[in-house]
Amino acid sequence: MEGFNLELSDQPESLEQILVDCRDTLKYGIRTGHPRFFNQLSSGLDIIGLAGEWLTSTANTNMFTYEIAPVFVLMEQLTLKKMREMIGWPGGEGDGLFSPGGAISNMYSVMIARYKYFPEVKTKGMSAAPRLVLFTSEHSHYSIKKAGAALGFGTDNVILLSTDERGRVIPADLEAKIIDAKQKGYVPLFVNATAGSTVYGAFDPINEIADICEKYNLWLHVDGAWGGGLLMSRKHRHKLNGVERANSVTWNPHKMMGVPLQCSAILVREKGILAGCNSMCAGYLFQPDKQYDVTYDTGDKAIQCGRHVDIFKFWLMWKAKGTIGFEQHIDKCLDLSQYLYNKIKNREGFQMVFDGVPQHTNVCFWYIPPSLRGMPDSDERREKLHRVAPKIKAMMMESGTTMVGYQPQGNKVNFFRMVVSNPAATQSDIDFLIDEIERMGQDL
Amino acid sequence: MEGFNLELSDQPESLEQILVDCRDTLKYGIRTGHPRFFNQLSSGLDIIGLAGEWLTSTANTNMFTYEIAPVFVLMEQLTLKKMREMIGWPGGEGDGLFSPGGAISNMYSVMIARYKYFPEVKTKGMSAAPRLVLFTSEHSHYSIKKAGAALGFGTDNVILLSTDERGRVIPADLEAKIIDAKQKGYVPLFVNATAGSTVYGAFDPINEIADICEKYNLWLHVDGAWGGGLLMSRKHRHKLNGVERANSVTWNPHKMMGVPLQCSAILVREKGILAGCNSMCAGYLFQPDKQYDVTYDTGDKAIQCGRHVDIFKFWLMWKAKGTIGFEQHIDKCLDLSQYLYNKIKNREGFQMVFDGVPQHTNVCFWYIPPSLRGMPDSDERREKLHRVAPKIKAMMMESGTTMVGYQPQGNKVNFFRMVVSNPAATQSDIDFLIDEIERMGQDL
Repeated sequence: MEGFNLELSDQPESLEQILVDCRDTLKYGIRTGHPRFFNQLSSGLDIIGLAGEWLTSTANTNMFTYEIAPVFVLMEQLTLKKMREMIGWPGGEGDGLFSPGGAISNMYSVMIARYKYFPEVKTKGMSAAPRLVLFTSEHSHYSIKKAGAALGFGTDNVILLSTDERGRVIPADLEAKIIDAKQKGYVPLFVNATAGSTVYGAFDPINEIADICEKYNLWLHVDGAWGGGLLMSRKHRHKLNGVERANSVTWNPHKMMGVPLQCSAILVREKGILAGCNSMCAGYLFQPDKQYDVTYDTGDKAIQCGRHVDIFKFWLMWKAKGTIGFEQHIDKCLDLSQYLYNKIKNREGFQMVFDGVPQHTNVCFWYIPPSLRGMPDSDERREKLHRVAPKIKAMMMESGTTMVGYQPQGNKVNFFRMVVSNPAATQSDIDFLIDEIERMGQDL
Repeated sequence: MEGFNLELSDQPESLEQILVDCRDTLKYGIRTGHPRFFNQLSSGLDIIGLAGEWLTSTANTNMFTYEIAPVFVLMEQLTLKKMREMIGWPGGEGDGLFSPGGAISNMYSVMIARYKYFPEVKTKGMSAAPRLVLFTSEHSHYSIKKAGAALGFGTDNVILLSTDERGRVIPADLEAKIIDAKQKGYVPLFVNATAGSTVYGAFDPINEIADICEKYNLWLHVDGAWGGGLLMSRKHRHKLNGVERANSVTWNPHKMMGVPLQCSAILVREKGILAGCNSMCAGYLFQPDKQYDVTYDTGDKAIQCGRHVDIFKFWLMWKAKGTIGFEQHIDKCLDLSQYLYNKIKNREGFQMVFDGVPQHTNVCFWYIPPSLRGMPDSDERREKLHRVAPKIKAMMMESGTTMVGYQPQGNKVNFFRMVVSNPAATQSDIDFLIDEIERMGQDL
């Protein structure tokens, strides 16, 4: 905050000062488009996507009605259909919306599941339903728990499923926990299977989970916020085998597909249920006596009223790259991760968090500084190792050379989580990252 | 869809075709920035705001952590504080977030109120609370009902308050309905007072409502999505008198203040409650051992995970216009509405929906075609009049000259709702609208 006057005042600034402010904003910001920015699942800066976003802001309109966003509404319909085709729903039938991020898309899935089985909750509230429980992996995104809290289920009723060493749900554990919940008199409602977990990049076994959901008549949601993009790749889409059996899918093109923030879709197999769940039929906005087919008005399907135009940049990128362009993008990022994995799996000073080739671009590892290499496992060593990644990350941020995330997971102390979603990254950027970690960490 | 190939294919398009697509998208789109576009509460195209949005998309980052959006996070903090000062909360203390639209901001207010009085709902679900009821005006935005449905209260427990002929809540009706609910054994929780209703532009009497909320210990939310901007005007801010007594306020700069879509704030008087309500403490994102003060990380306050950068365009506009610039913008739009009102209140063929000078820029009126002017009130006349506004609107859309909304309200048949939020509009645009309605409606 030094040297950058953020304060707002009564009087206007000069245009010169506004330009200085713009320069300073970029100067002190983080270059998320840089090929050595590996800190988030969303990275890169696609130039066509950026142009699309610029046009979107120039159009400055709203997705709720066809009458003020005719082109964007049609683009959204058509793109969602294409995504449903890639999921494998017959004829691309179904419904969907672009929503403000994966957490909201996941929240939609829980709302729709509740409406499917207990539609009276919409009018009478949760007291009209028995005690409902939701199931999701201990490695899944925290938005399922957030949805549980927000929607009135309670986080105690979001039951966490055990995973194998690679972070994938163990189907037998799901079935055991369903049976357990039923024995307690609770009503299992919803299972979230993650396609590409945040930390490990794990893909839950969707087909086995779908078998159990069918057996017990539960809603199956696939959270493919991070992994959904792999559906564009003939080489990698098998990791989502069974996704066509899901009732709903979250898929964020702003992550693995490099679309500028924000661009997240909730896709639903059953047509009409999204509107059934959310419609309030506000007369002032959705007049039935308009001169066009009002089924093109999307506002009453959403929990929002106004909805940002997130479709155009994605549609334009798809036009410009073609499906094969996205496939190349995804294959390239996965190849780069494989390159990183191969380079460090047996390298001195690096230790993988789990064995085997990563399923997604996530590569999870500890950097072990020379001072800890000979030390046997102990609480002291674990505490010291826990502090290594934060220290290296702090040095990265001070020097501004690269940026990568770290976190603990379960009983595992802080480790680095490397991800690649920017197709501008190259092998030399990966080499640089390894060198930088070794350079910064050698004296810790 | 004729002559514009929206289909997505496997192969990329040429750059020339992409440019054609961009041109077509704008060509077939709606010019929401045109001074004769009066169809929505959000209109206009502020050039500094647009530049801000372009810079935002170039920065392509995410509000959830300080480490990847340091400048934007500070701008958000500072701007929200400034907004809280304008509300009148001592020292601008409190909390808040920019959210994806007023409906979500209103949803936050209901969630926070529930957390304040029944924090155990977060973990145990709605079954841990008694039957809770929410109160909002029959003229209020439908998002309060939507929040009731989504959050598990049920729309039956959203009790609609009666209004006077101007669409303002009758405080005595609120108190009667609170007493009635208590007698039935329900627990009143939350009252929404609207500052600028969607159709009439009505301001509920906040002070009188606040008295009742204090008496019965209820959460008071002010939905100022539309009317909040009037706080910037010394001349008009009295319409929100009492807003400083609210527990939470929704205020959308993307409406009356002309900030590009989307820009909506939820502001909360009590510090800490927003995080208490929504935090899940996800270790992979919000590490407590970062090298900076992690209270700057905002992600755990939100129901979203990733959050779009909505602050920069607003901050930049505020810098460029100063508070007095927003004041001039607002005063000008209200003057224009007054001009319209004065012009049509006694004009042949026009009939006001309610008497008196509008409180906001909303001017609600029927156009009575010559064929209906002599006809006494009857079902037939009402049915005919109901079809006039849709027909004129359809003609406007065909000819592309202007655009204004219509809707029925209660037992009132379709009428026009004129609003002005674009400071580029002038008296001649208002004159044009009146002429256009007369020209298009004369033979109906």
